[in-house]
Amino acid sequence: MPDGNSVGCVVPQRFCHDAPMALKGGGRLPSFELVFETYGSLNAARSNAVLVCHALSGSHHVAGFHADTPDSEGWWDNLVGPGKPLDTEKFFVVGVNNLGGCYGSTGPLSPNPETGKRYGADFPLLTVEDWVLAQSRLADHLGIDTWAAVIGGSLGGMQAIEWSLKFPERIRHVIAIASAPKLSAQNIAFNEVARQAILSDPEFHGGHYAERGVVPARGLRLARMIGHITYLSDDQMNEKFGRQLRGGGLGFSYGIDFEIESYLRYQGDKFAAFFDANTYLLTTKALDYFDPALDHGGDLATALAAARASFLVVSFTTDWRFSPARSREIVFALMQNRRRVAYAEIDCDAGHDSFLLDDARYHAALRAYLEKIKP
Amino acid sequence: MPDGNSVGCVVPQRFCHDAPMALKGGGRLPSFELVFETYGSLNAARSNAVLVCHALSGSHHVAGFHADTPDSEGWWDNLVGPGKPLDTEKFFVVGVNNLGGCYGSTGPLSPNPETGKRYGADFPLLTVEDWVLAQSRLADHLGIDTWAAVIGGSLGGMQAIEWSLKFPERIRHVIAIASAPKLSAQNIAFNEVARQAILSDPEFHGGHYAERGVVPARGLRLARMIGHITYLSDDQMNEKFGRQLRGGGLGFSYGIDFEIESYLRYQGDKFAAFFDANTYLLTTKALDYFDPALDHGGDLATALAAARASFLVVSFTTDWRFSPARSREIVFALMQNRRRVAYAEIDCDAGHDSFLLDDARYHAALRAYLEKIKP
Repeated sequence: MPDGNSVGCVVPQRFCHDAPMALKGGGRLPSFELVFETYGSLNAARSNAVLVCHALSGSHHVAGFHADTPDSEGWWDNLVGPGKPLDTEKFFVVGVNNLGGCYGSTGPLSPNPETGKRYGADFPLLTVEDWVLAQSRLADHLGIDTWAAVIGGSLGGMQAIEWSLKFPERIRHVIAIASAPKLSAQNIAFNEVARQAILSDPEFHGGHYAERGVVPARGLRLARMIGHITYLSDDQMNEKFGRQLRGGGLGFSYGIDFEIESYLRYQGDKFAAFFDANTYLLTTKALDYFDPALDHGGDLATALAAARASFLVVSFTTDWRFSPARSREIVFALMQNRRRVAYAEIDCDAGHDSFLLDDARYHAALRAYLEKIKP
Repeated sequence: MPDGNSVGCVVPQRFCHDAPMALKGGGRLPSFELVFETYGSLNAARSNAVLVCHALSGSHHVAGFHADTPDSEGWWDNLVGPGKPLDTEKFFVVGVNNLGGCYGSTGPLSPNPETGKRYGADFPLLTVEDWVLAQSRLADHLGIDTWAAVIGGSLGGMQAIEWSLKFPERIRHVIAIASAPKLSAQNIAFNEVARQAILSDPEFHGGHYAERGVVPARGLRLARMIGHITYLSDDQMNEKFGRQLRGGGLGFSYGIDFEIESYLRYQGDKFAAFFDANTYLLTTKALDYFDPALDHGGDLATALAAARASFLVVSFTTDWRFSPARSREIVFALMQNRRRVAYAEIDCDAGHDSFLLDDARYHAALRAYLEKIKP
């Protein structure tokens, strides 16, 4: 159940884009829909809108709860609400499920209007730029010419950065949390193993599993287990699970010996029961492909020269997926361009997942920055 | 082809243990065989023998080459040979394939003498202590009462440590490289995902795949890909592969975009073609279970009080699988017991796999230590 300062019961809305949109990979979508939610009120000047971009497995449901499921708290409910750091009494907050998603926006599970069948593996691969382009059409639809801020963690932070490059005049503040200017070889490697787990699942059927009424649950489960290892810090994992045994002693079988095994299996099973495998695949590719410096000879400072926004960059000391060093690259590149940039490196033990938690210093940093933004 | 100071052409030998051996997990093997190789000559006093213990995917074939395959260099050939740090002109070096292995020692692919069929999943789970016990029977067979040294990297280092605890009077020196006194939650987590990849492969058939003439290659491939990520350092991966593309540009498909993807797939495919899945499973469990402090209230110093040997502990700065901090735990616990211990922390960028490489400072440290051991 929501706490006292929840945005309360929220209702997802739909935006239908009934015209084709060209994609970076060369394909095009004949039309698309985005599911989104809004919290707070758009002011008369239409100047207080904040877009929240989600990461790999997030959705449009950022805050509040849905009437039919009172425990369906939004994934960033601790941050977004009346009186919370992203204050819905001041800001009009928009959460959107990205294109290619599996929470209601047009994606691999949607019918392809050109064939009448589900897209499945025929859904085109997308990039962070494509997501931002689709989000800009939603902004047009909502009458939002300029975002007060675009905020996101991890892959969401990449979208916030991309907004400042693709639409520099339409965004006043970028808040990029636990993010990176591009993936490292190790980041790509983890994504690739997760993809191979899905692609090699016999139930994947070349991506057309939905047509057959099956899901590549084994692959999705493994992908999520791998992901979870990289979301947590080594320290936190030791603190939370250590070598704690599930039962009284070692089992000398391949059942569960250690609590960490139980945790990973549970997370994997839960995820495989609801997430779409094609969405997982294309989202990891969007992560791999994100590299704004690529068209600028690999020079991030040159790439970020296009940005006009002010930035808040936040990282977490124990995040080894996107370490503070990766955030500092963004900060230094912005400083080389003499852009306004604030940077907070938060000493939090929860690894990459810290961006989802309500660590006091982290939320204080966000609150302080957001309070200074003129609505 | 071997270099000038290779031990040359070597021939594997077999040791048949025709009596039952009780295992820590409660099971027993009615009999077993170990395949091993030796390099150099055992001196008259039988005091110059060094046992080399292998890690997850290693074997008895430590040095030299096999006559039928001249490029079959042993996995530690850079270390073992005449004039090399582990000098076969001074030492009698023994390499052994562990019990449960898939290179010729009795393991899941062997026939179960009680049924006549392959053991498969009925092969008992083993511990590092079981391996050491089996190795001690080989030592008896070879007439080696006391090892001048037992040496190993990673899981091999754990065996070397275990020797000093189980048979304190039979070992003069322990050389534990890139090792740890027990796995962390994150270490176990990676092993668990690898196991789940194998166990959930439809071709696993509850571990009785060999009876059906199939192999769970998909699972083994994923397990190896995950492993490889943890063997390399983030830095080295960036240096070696970075975001280098395989072709001219991004493919917008699930084919290979980045070199790191190609590397991992190649390593996974190669491994799945020869390694046994049940051996992989039981070896990761032996890793997870290793924890000499467990029976001593979790206190490593108390556990290591039994040791009488001198120790050389070596770690590598960029090893994030078994970081230097894990080696220092061993060193401190030995110091608390006033044991003789030398420690080398090598600044090498190759991560966990450094122990297999011939980094100059690393080999110099090993050479210096080994030169001081009286044969």
